[in-house]
Amino acid sequence: MKESASVACDSLEGVKSFRKELWFNTPSRRAFVNITPQVEECLTESGIHEGLALVNAMHITASVFINDNETGLHQDYEKWLETLAPHHPVSQYLHNRTGEDNADAHLKRQVMGREVVVAVTEGKLDFGPWEQIFYGEFDGRRKKRVLVKIIGD
Amino acid sequence: MKESASVACDSLEGVKSFRKELWFNTPSRRAFVNITPQVEECLTESGIHEGLALVNAMHITASVFINDNETGLHQDYEKWLETLAPHHPVSQYLHNRTGEDNADAHLKRQVMGREVVVAVTEGKLDFGPWEQIFYGEFDGRRKKRVLVKIIGD
Amino acid sequence: MKESASVACDSLEGVKSFRKELWFNTPSRRAFVNITPQVEECLTESGIHEGLALVNAMHITASVFINDNETGLHQDYEKWLETLAPHHPVSQYLHNRTGEDNADAHLKRQVMGREVVVAVTEGKLDFGPWEQIFYGEFDGRRKKRVLVKIIGD
Repeated sequence: MKESASVACDSLEGVKSFRKELWFNTPSRRAFVNITPQVEECLTESGIHEGLALVNAMHITASVFINDNETGLHQDYEKWLETLAPHHPVSQYLHNRTGEDNADAHLKRQVMGREVVVAVTEGKLDFGPWEQIFYGEFDGRRKKRVLVKIIGD
Repeated sequence: MKESASVACDSLEGVKSFRKELWFNTPSRRAFVNITPQVEECLTESGIHEGLALVNAMHITASVFINDNETGLHQDYEKWLETLAPHHPVSQYLHNRTGEDNADAHLKRQVMGREVVVAVTEGKLDFGPWEQIFYGEFDGRRKKRVLVKIIGD
Repeated sequence: MKESASVACDSLEGVKSFRKELWFNTPSRRAFVNITPQVEECLTESGIHEGLALVNAMHITASVFINDNETGLHQDYEKWLETLAPHHPVSQYLHNRTGEDNADAHLKRQVMGREVVVAVTEGKLDFGPWEQIFYGEFDGRRKKRVLVKIIGD
């Protein structure tokens, strides 16, 4: 996982904005990665105190979502998503006739969502007691990105 | 249901922001509560005319979503979510080995979503004809919160 | 498909905002329409360079989502959503006792989502390599709207 250069853009009059890409290359096809610390670092770097933080998967077979940092639950998600949108047989999906085998990943990502928007208050991610941000990978084993965009003051 | 103190933050030059928590304690495990009037009150209180309003569950077994204010539909959601992610048997979920019995609530909330972002136009929630904001509770009978964060001008 | 008048609002000091409605009238009950070009036109018209673009269905039986512009995948979505929330028999849903036959559309839209929030960077939609914005219609054959709201600088 490496991070690309980030850009904090300080306008004279109006809105501050910040952008950074987070990179992932999960060794397994499916994985859940807690990215809360990286998003917090982005926020600190941005210098933004009040605003909104958008965190989204830049790839359409992956997800960014907020839920619990509990391993058992992540295994429950894995099993449940496989029931809702099974990987096998790959021939059941028309999308896989393009030569891909990841149609199920496009479906799973819709259940888990592409993005989260998090309030920024007094320079912190404005979270409830158990909220953590996860990258959900459903077709890994290659380099993929998450975008962090923060706007505010 | 009580509301915590709200904060409207008026910066000299840039972005206005507003924050308020809405509190819930539903008597049943699962419930849908129309929170549109409270969010409208927040918007009025904020004094913001153009911008974006984020409304999100601060707990990871609850949801904020936009749909129809129709009782039959809410019962359809309840039945449908129970089919997709049944509460019983609680032993089917690894998460429940932690002593919880709410793994299904973490799954249901992913289907219904954590948050909505609503456009603010001319000081109003910029809604289509039937849009209403709901708090979706999937593990109630205790105090839980929704965050309203509005930014703009 | 026609577009209503758009409004770009240039505040002296703070946040720029832009609003436009996109109109749809799909000939079939269900359809997926690529609306990326229209959203890009909105962004150009807005003159906003850094910020966030919200694109949301204004109707509660439709969706706006980001995924792949691949026909086979769209057929997979159609079939999959019909498995998760079948249209027939319409009598299985309490909502349809109101005289409607679109309860399934309210369910399908929750899986696919109401809205997307897209980062705006250097005057462009800040997309990964395959991201495209789609209008997902689940109860068409009548005029319906999508809202584009952009805020920033």
